[in-house]
Amino acid sequence: MRAVQTGQFEGGSAFVDGEFVPLSEAKISMFDWGFTRSDVTYDVATTWQGAFFRLDAHMDRFFASLQKMRLAIPYSRAELREILHGVVRAGGLQDAYVAMVCTRGVPPRGARDPRLAQNRFYAYALPYVWIASREKQLAGLDLHISERQRIPATSVDPTVKNYHWMDLVQSLYDAYDQGRDTSCVVDAAGNITEGPGFNVFMVKNGVVHTADSGVLEGISRRTAIELCERLQIPVHIAPVPSAALRAADEVFLTSSGGGILPIARLDGVALPDFPGPVAGRLYDAYWAIHEEAQYRDPVAY
Amino acid sequence: MRAVQTGQFEGGSAFVDGEFVPLSEAKISMFDWGFTRSDVTYDVATTWQGAFFRLDAHMDRFFASLQKMRLAIPYSRAELREILHGVVRAGGLQDAYVAMVCTRGVPPRGARDPRLAQNRFYAYALPYVWIASREKQLAGLDLHISERQRIPATSVDPTVKNYHWMDLVQSLYDAYDQGRDTSCVVDAAGNITEGPGFNVFMVKNGVVHTADSGVLEGISRRTAIELCERLQIPVHIAPVPSAALRAADEVFLTSSGGGILPIARLDGVALPDFPGPVAGRLYDAYWAIHEEAQYRDPVAY
Ligand SMILES: Cc1ncc(COP(=O)(O)O)c(C=O)c1O
Ligand SMILES: Cc1ncc(COP(=O)(O)O)c(C=O)c1O
Repeated sequence: MRAVQTGQFEGGSAFVDGEFVPLSEAKISMFDWGFTRSDVTYDVATTWQGAFFRLDAHMDRFFASLQKMRLAIPYSRAELREILHGVVRAGGLQDAYVAMVCTRGVPPRGARDPRLAQNRFYAYALPYVWIASREKQLAGLDLHISERQRIPATSVDPTVKNYHWMDLVQSLYDAYDQGRDTSCVVDAAGNITEGPGFNVFMVKNGVVHTADSGVLEGISRRTAIELCERLQIPVHIAPVPSAALRAADEVFLTSSGGGILPIARLDGVALPDFPGPVAGRLYDAYWAIHEEAQYRDPVAY
Repeated sequence: MRAVQTGQFEGGSAFVDGEFVPLSEAKISMFDWGFTRSDVTYDVATTWQGAFFRLDAHMDRFFASLQKMRLAIPYSRAELREILHGVVRAGGLQDAYVAMVCTRGVPPRGARDPRLAQNRFYAYALPYVWIASREKQLAGLDLHISERQRIPATSVDPTVKNYHWMDLVQSLYDAYDQGRDTSCVVDAAGNITEGPGFNVFMVKNGVVHTADSGVLEGISRRTAIELCERLQIPVHIAPVPSAALRAADEVFLTSSGGGILPIARLDGVALPDFPGPVAGRLYDAYWAIHEEAQYRDPVAY
C-alpha cells in the first residue's frame, strides 16, 4: 500500500482495494455478498484528541468476528493498525469514528458458493459520531422501549458485530413516531437487549445492571463495567426485564459513539435521577481514562 | 432517464443514479444504510426466452415491501417496468436474472435519523442464475437440514424480501462441510422454513406440503401452489416439522433461480422418490406456463 500524507483527504478518508482514497470513492460492488446477503463483519474504534482509545480491544473483537464468520483479511494485526492510523492521518482528524469492514466479496458469476469469493477489506475515518448530540444529551434523552425483538442469537451471533439492523431501524421509526429520541429492543422473554449502536445499563439502589447475553459485547460496555469495578460500584450482569428498566433509578447507554449517555425519560416518563450520580461518575471516569497511556495509541500526524 | 440500446452493455447492465451503466459501475456508497444497516428491500424477477415471467407479481411484492419498510422509489409502476425492460435490453439477455433494489440511502453526515436519508433505487440484469446447475440437478441435489434458526418474524418481517442472510450463509457452510449441496433452516419449534434463495416443499401420500409462515412468500412458491390447484394435486399449507420432511416421499425447492428443483437426498439419505412424479409434473407445468400470455411480458429488443 502507498503511504498517505497528513490531511491528504481532509475531513475523512477511506482505504479501498489497498489504497487510501477520498470518502467519495468509498464504494462497494452491488454484487458483493457483504451487500446482497449482509455477509460482513466490522468494528468501529475511535480516536479522541489525536489518539486511538482501546484500539487493541477493537482489533481483538474484529479478528474474533472474522474467525467466527470464516472471513479473512490479507493484513496482519500490525498492518491493520497501520491502515487505521492511515485513514485518520489522511483525514487530518483529531476526534474520529474509525471503521474496519470485511465483506465476503463477489463469488464468480452464477456461483452461489461463498467459499469461492475473495473477501474484501475496507476502512474509513470520519469525524467522531455521537449517538445523540450534546444538546440532546443535555436536554435529556427520551428512550423508547420497543416491543420488537432483537434478532436472536440462535439466528445471528450477536457477539459478531454485524449489519443486521432491520429490527433496530424499524424500532427507531416507532420511537420517532412517538416523539422519542432513540429506542432499544427486547428478547423473546421481554428482557432489554440493545439499541441502534449501544448497550443499555440501569442503576437500582446503587447497583448497576446490564444484559449478560443476546447483545454485542460493546467495548464501551466493558469499559463501563471495568470502571464500576475501579470505583467500587457493584455490577450485576444478568437479564434485565423491561419492567425492571422502567422501575430504575438511572438508565444510561454505552457506545463508542459518545461513551456513557445518560437517559432522562423512558417512553416519556421521567426517571427519578437525571442526571444521575452513578452515570455521572462513570461519564467523568470514561473521559478521564482517555488520558491513560495503557488505553492510548497516539496517531503520528 | 436516457434511452438505452439493445446490447449496449452486452452480458448484463445496471441502472444506477438514473442512468443505464455497465455492471462494473454497479456500486453503492459504503455509507448507504442499505449496506451499514442492511436497511434495504429488493425483488428478483426473471426473463425466459425474451419475456418476463409474472413481472406484475414481482412488482406487487416489491411495492408492498417498500411500503412496509417506509421506503419509496421515485418511479411509477410504468417507469419501473420500463427500467427493468431497459436493463435486460441493454444486456442483450434472453434468459435473465433481473433485480430491483431500494436502499435507505445516506443520511446527512453525523445524523442517525433514517427519515433524513434520500432513498436510492438500483436495478440490474444478469444472465439467468440457477440455485443449482443442471448437472447438479440431474445428479441429484443433497439438502442439509440445518439446526440454525431463520431470523424470526418477530425481528424481521420475512414477507419483506431482505438481505438478512447471515443465518442462511452460515447454514450453507455447514452444508458444504458435510458434503451437501445446499441447506435449509428451521424455526424455533423445529419447523422447516426456507433456504438461501428458495422455499421448501414436500410430498407425502400424494399431498403437497409447504410452510405457511416465517418465510418469504415466493412467487415460485405461489406458482407451484397454483399449479397444484390446476393439476388437482391437494396442497396443505401449514408448519412442516423437520421430522415430516425427513419422512417425505418427495422434496423440492421453489425459486426464481430455477423454478421447481427436485431434491434427491436429505443429509445424505436418499428420498424414496427421485425424480418424483409430483415434482416432475410441477416441473413440466412450471416451464410450460412460461408460454402463457397472461404471465408473459416480452422484452422489445
Ligand atoms: C448493536 C450494537 N450494540 C452495542 C454497540 C456498542 O458497542 P461499542 O461499545 O463497542 O461501541 C454497538 C456499537 O455500534 C452496536 O452496534
Ligand atoms: C429467503 C428466500 N426465500 C424464498 C425465495 C424464493 O422466492 P421466489 O420464488 O420469489 O424467487 C427467495 C428468493 O430469492 C429467498 O431469498
